Amino acid sequence: MERNIEAMAKFARDVGVNLRPHVKTHKTPEIAHRQLGAGAKGICVQKLGEAETMAKAGINDIFITNQVVGNLKIRRLTALAQHCNVSVAVDSSENVQALSSAAREAGVEIGVFIEVDCGLHRCGVQPGRNVFRLAEYTSKLDGVSFRGVMAFEGHVYDAPSLEERRRVVDKAIRSVTSTVKMMERRGIAVEDVSVGTTPSVRLSAKYPGVTEVQPGNYVFNDVMQLEMGTAKAEDCALTVCTTIISRPSNDRAVIDAGSKAFAYDRGKFPKAKEVLGVKVMSFYEEHGVLKLRGSSQRLKIGDVVEFIPYHACTTVNLHDELVGVRDGKVETVWPILARGKMK
Amino acid sequence: MERNIEAMAKFARDVGVNLRPHVKTHKTPEIAHRQLGAGAKGICVQKLGEAETMAKAGINDIFITNQVVGNLKIRRLTALAQHCNVSVAVDSSENVQALSSAAREAGVEIGVFIEVDCGLHRCGVQPGRNVFRLAEYTSKLDGVSFRGVMAFEGHVYDAPSLEERRRVVDKAIRSVTSTVKMMERRGIAVEDVSVGTTPSVRLSAKYPGVTEVQPGNYVFNDVMQLEMGTAKAEDCALTVCTTIISRPSNDRAVIDAGSKAFAYDRGKFPKAKEVLGVKVMSFYEEHGVLKLRGSSQRLKIGDVVEFIPYHACTTVNLHDELVGVRDGKVETVWPILARGKMK
Repeated sequence: MERNIEAMAKFARDVGVNLRPHVKTHKTPEIAHRQLGAGAKGICVQKLGEAETMAKAGINDIFITNQVVGNLKIRRLTALAQHCNVSVAVDSSENVQALSSAAREAGVEIGVFIEVDCGLHRCGVQPGRNVFRLAEYTSKLDGVSFRGVMAFEGHVYDAPSLEERRRVVDKAIRSVTSTVKMMERRGIAVEDVSVGTTPSVRLSAKYPGVTEVQPGNYVFNDVMQLEMGTAKAEDCALTVCTTIISRPSNDRAVIDAGSKAFAYDRGKFPKAKEVLGVKVMSFYEEHGVLKLRGSSQRLKIGDVVEFIPYHACTTVNLHDELVGVRDGKVETVWPILARGKMK
Repeated sequence: MERNIEAMAKFARDVGVNLRPHVKTHKTPEIAHRQLGAGAKGICVQKLGEAETMAKAGINDIFITNQVVGNLKIRRLTALAQHCNVSVAVDSSENVQALSSAAREAGVEIGVFIEVDCGLHRCGVQPGRNVFRLAEYTSKLDGVSFRGVMAFEGHVYDAPSLEERRRVVDKAIRSVTSTVKMMERRGIAVEDVSVGTTPSVRLSAKYPGVTEVQPGNYVFNDVMQLEMGTAKAEDCALTVCTTIISRPSNDRAVIDAGSKAFAYDRGKFPKAKEVLGVKVMSFYEEHGVLKLRGSSQRLKIGDVVEFIPYHACTTVNLHDELVGVRDGKVETVWPILARGKMK
């Protein structure tokens, strides 16, 4: 994990962009502080609840890369802005208007990034003049400070080869940077252009105009990154330790972990670390059924099998603690303080 | 929820079997106490950590329907047995031996159910003489008290029609009850035969020889039960309230909940309650992309849309609190105390 943190920090330094790691992956202040210590400018969170948790842990520069909507949440946001440098993503004038009113009333300032839909078709304004208009609108309001644009090129996850990823990233990032150029020609100063996700960051960070990257998964990596070729086995820093509780037949073992210990949001199973010939066949809530071949058939009740999650971010979200291991010895136990902070 | 609890309690009373609800679904002591209040004999849990949480909340008759393996866990189990009536499932003589040694040393008694594999092919001893042998072995040991057999006919979830379910249940339960008859002929007293899961319980409870049922999901129900025809919409007591945070186009809305708020272990999406024309197209960690048709296109940023989870048990496991609503008013907030207690 420490190596992953340092490698990404060095990459950002070398390219000359700011690194703002997305802490949705680990949800753990101890790790966020290590990322900041390695040179990150601030952090990204996905939820207001995560921002509150990280602020309580002493983190002062937080970008909520999501829309914060509704009076109750906006009031929590202005309370947070009293003692913390906080920005949010917006993609509608109603939302900017609501943020501005609440911030003025509370006497605080909230940073605002216009979210641009660079091809994922989730949230975001379409590239081009609508981004300019929303930025112009934002600039005229008090309480909100226009900071720049944000885009999430998450559709690279659907591009299995490096060649395809290059094409996806090129189209996505150019749609953003050309919009920014147009905005600057029209007199809007765009301080930051924040993009990037682990499987694309080494491509997108290099586009002229990009000032900040927000990868998250890189801190742990997972089977998804292995499959995309963006991490090697030795870069996978997160595992779930399971115990064999039943050996009903020669080629079947059952572990004490299932869909409440491993996320299944990508429809794929975790991968056994180090033990060969082990394949997850099915998950129940608290059981995993393994098919054993070859030497793995020697596994017996009580043996521990370590698995690399298919998706680290959603798997961490199922657990309460991270156990830090160095050279085979437990060094620390960290509470995953922002786990479940989805409100 | 109260109606579901009462209906299942009445069913068990009418059939003349004991009800031992599985609390893995709700993981919430407040609900377990309501189930006991309605007449349940005790509770089932899937994990030792859940058992510890429920015991701390004053529940005294707990069956861990799973194998508890390894010295560390068995020591926790004997500690629990000091002040609580606790049983576990076993399917190997090594495990029974380890339980016996630890219980003798601690001066406690642990109830033991032999788990029988009635067709799911997960854990469990094959029906027939191996069950008898393990029961006989258990009966001779101190510290463990042979209580009976347990079987989980979970493969009914793969039987979409009632007709198929009947066939699956018939084969499954007969394999258990015929084993029990054979054991009794050979002089082993089988006090309890514990089976059942929500979509099969109304069939399996009626087999002669079955003494106890352990449904869990019925307390809330979910889209899975709707699809199987084992619950109606008005029986679905659990929803997740989401807020629309973005309206990027006329037929697209984005909600503030995704795969960290809704479990995806069955590969299916939740269903909007009450609002027509809403369909979940994709989930990201904290976003859900909705397709809107007809009148649902009037939905706007800030509107709340309630969803019935596809799978209640794994969805509850993502959240920290249940909000109790009666007649549209919030009546209580319950912490989901056994959430994440998978150790």
